[in-house]
Amino acid sequence: MDETKVGEMLSSQGKFDWLQSIRKEFKKYHKSTDKEEDDAATILQDKRHTLISTKLFLDAIHFDLTYFPLKHLGYKIVSITISDILAMNGIPTHLMIHLGVSNRFSLAAVEEIMFGVKYCCQQYKLDLIQLDVEPSCQGLVASVTAYGEVEASKKVLRDGAKENDLICVSGDLAAAYAGLLLLEREKKVFQVNPQSQPDFAGYDYLLERQLKPEPRFNIIKSLKESDIQPSAMTHVTHGLAAAAIHICRASQVGCRIFEEKLPIDILTFQTLKELNIVPTTIALNGGDDNEILFTISQSDYEKISGIKEISVIGYIKDKNSGCNLITNDEKQIPLTAQEFSPFSTTD
Amino acid sequence: MDETKVGEMLSSQGKFDWLQSIRKEFKKYHKSTDKEEDDAATILQDKRHTLISTKLFLDAIHFDLTYFPLKHLGYKIVSITISDILAMNGIPTHLMIHLGVSNRFSLAAVEEIMFGVKYCCQQYKLDLIQLDVEPSCQGLVASVTAYGEVEASKKVLRDGAKENDLICVSGDLAAAYAGLLLLEREKKVFQVNPQSQPDFAGYDYLLERQLKPEPRFNIIKSLKESDIQPSAMTHVTHGLAAAAIHICRASQVGCRIFEEKLPIDILTFQTLKELNIVPTTIALNGGDDNEILFTISQSDYEKISGIKEISVIGYIKDKNSGCNLITNDEKQIPLTAQEFSPFSTTD
Repeated sequence: MDETKVGEMLSSQGKFDWLQSIRKEFKKYHKSTDKEEDDAATILQDKRHTLISTKLFLDAIHFDLTYFPLKHLGYKIVSITISDILAMNGIPTHLMIHLGVSNRFSLAAVEEIMFGVKYCCQQYKLDLIQLDVEPSCQGLVASVTAYGEVEASKKVLRDGAKENDLICVSGDLAAAYAGLLLLEREKKVFQVNPQSQPDFAGYDYLLERQLKPEPRFNIIKSLKESDIQPSAMTHVTHGLAAAAIHICRASQVGCRIFEEKLPIDILTFQTLKELNIVPTTIALNGGDDNEILFTISQSDYEKISGIKEISVIGYIKDKNSGCNLITNDEKQIPLTAQEFSPFSTTD
Repeated sequence: MDETKVGEMLSSQGKFDWLQSIRKEFKKYHKSTDKEEDDAATILQDKRHTLISTKLFLDAIHFDLTYFPLKHLGYKIVSITISDILAMNGIPTHLMIHLGVSNRFSLAAVEEIMFGVKYCCQQYKLDLIQLDVEPSCQGLVASVTAYGEVEASKKVLRDGAKENDLICVSGDLAAAYAGLLLLEREKKVFQVNPQSQPDFAGYDYLLERQLKPEPRFNIIKSLKESDIQPSAMTHVTHGLAAAAIHICRASQVGCRIFEEKLPIDILTFQTLKELNIVPTTIALNGGDDNEILFTISQSDYEKISGIKEISVIGYIKDKNSGCNLITNDEKQIPLTAQEFSPFSTTD
């Protein structure tokens, strides 16, 4: 009987191995079941595969309703969940939403969440195919399931990265986490002085990245238009380091990522500096970036450099080299992926 | 702004209409999206359809861990969720599990839940394709997604019942709820006297129906073998009345159900009588039965009477006749479907 508390495990690197040890005890009965250790689960069909993924969002763990507007929450939970389908090079098409709602919420509150869900569905042509609301004793719980498809020959898993492949990331990093830190700071100010007004002038970009992150349909579309078939791909949600380690573990390779190549917006950089936080640390280990990390063959370098919002940040090495960051002063530091979240109080 | 509390809505008949009013505001973008107001959502494909359904299970709402063994909980949440696929005349094949777990739980506790999940997967040949565990501030939360398929021509929705069709139900009713009442009674005894030992001798069947309900694969199989294509079908989870009203609303018909035909096991009947509860009330409005309600053409009567564990309990009438119970003393009483659960405390 392993009496270790779940919280200790979840805040450590051991989670993936633990979950894998449980999953290994499950037999497979259906030929249509593909390797399942990826962003989304795959169900194999003739020429295209079904992709499906669920995410669970829990009050005071994944969001803080004291400053998170319900409409934005509805948008964000959809955006993050469908990104698991995009991160397989697939297109999400259908959505299921299940909410657990305690009695402190009104019908209007649920309708606000669903307004945000609807707005994201409109933006990205998603059909809502199941919706249910259950009573909860425990604040707000949201389960979001995304369903999509990918042509069998176009599917990209985490496990295909090869030595010398280039490592690319979409958009920029650390902004969502910087936005979260600002919201947390203003929450503390408000707790001390309830008359205070939040001061977010000039920080719009950071707040938007935290409160209303966009899914990267544009990147998947650009890769297709440029005729680039990535060798490996994953969703960046718990920082770049965790995503890179995921790809390297699955592909049985190592990697070198260059600090100077990490795409960090100037506002993100300045804000984190003001808060006395090293921007590189947040880019590597902050959360909520909602970007796509992928690897491509070196022969695709010219094609990729023509696509906006993609940065080449390093390359794949052999397994024995490990996963490393090359710092601006040319030191080599092993990547680590201890997830950290500002909300970690559990009972 | 509708400031009605969610709990008031969820405990009333209005829930279905409210959810439908939200869903109506969502546009449809994909041809593959079928009518979605059924037990499972359908995604149309060439010759067979994909069926998919999620259920959310919440601590102190759907289960009480003071007496619910974790292994049984794991089994039950799978059994109930896959029944939504069976209730479309489909076969569930794949499963996704997402748990939110507070820090009062150990790794061993999660492994016990997953042991129950695994046992159900073994019994019914289900492939676990996604598993994740998140920290929670709120006890235990489980989101279960079932995936399956059905031949396009064999799919059964709620909306196909026709006048004069026979109404059939699998298994027997009210036993799971009787089991729950026994567990609740022993919990109260234990609270008063912690030295007491629970006294469940002779009640095994009722406890099993509550703690380890089986999904009705056998019924779907028997219908196929007997070459019966039901006209409408739904999952009985919140009592027979709610299920019958679901079919009648979707099919735009009415029904007559005969009290004397309701299948109630003798132990269930006697136990409920001892507890001063009218068995018919629980059969109609109790919860957790995990049975299948369906309608068939009268011409299939002979075929259906050869199948074990199916009772013909009434027939479909025109819409204007309403949904009624014909009591043993030949009174006609309208069916109502106000859900009730012994756990209704929300904050």
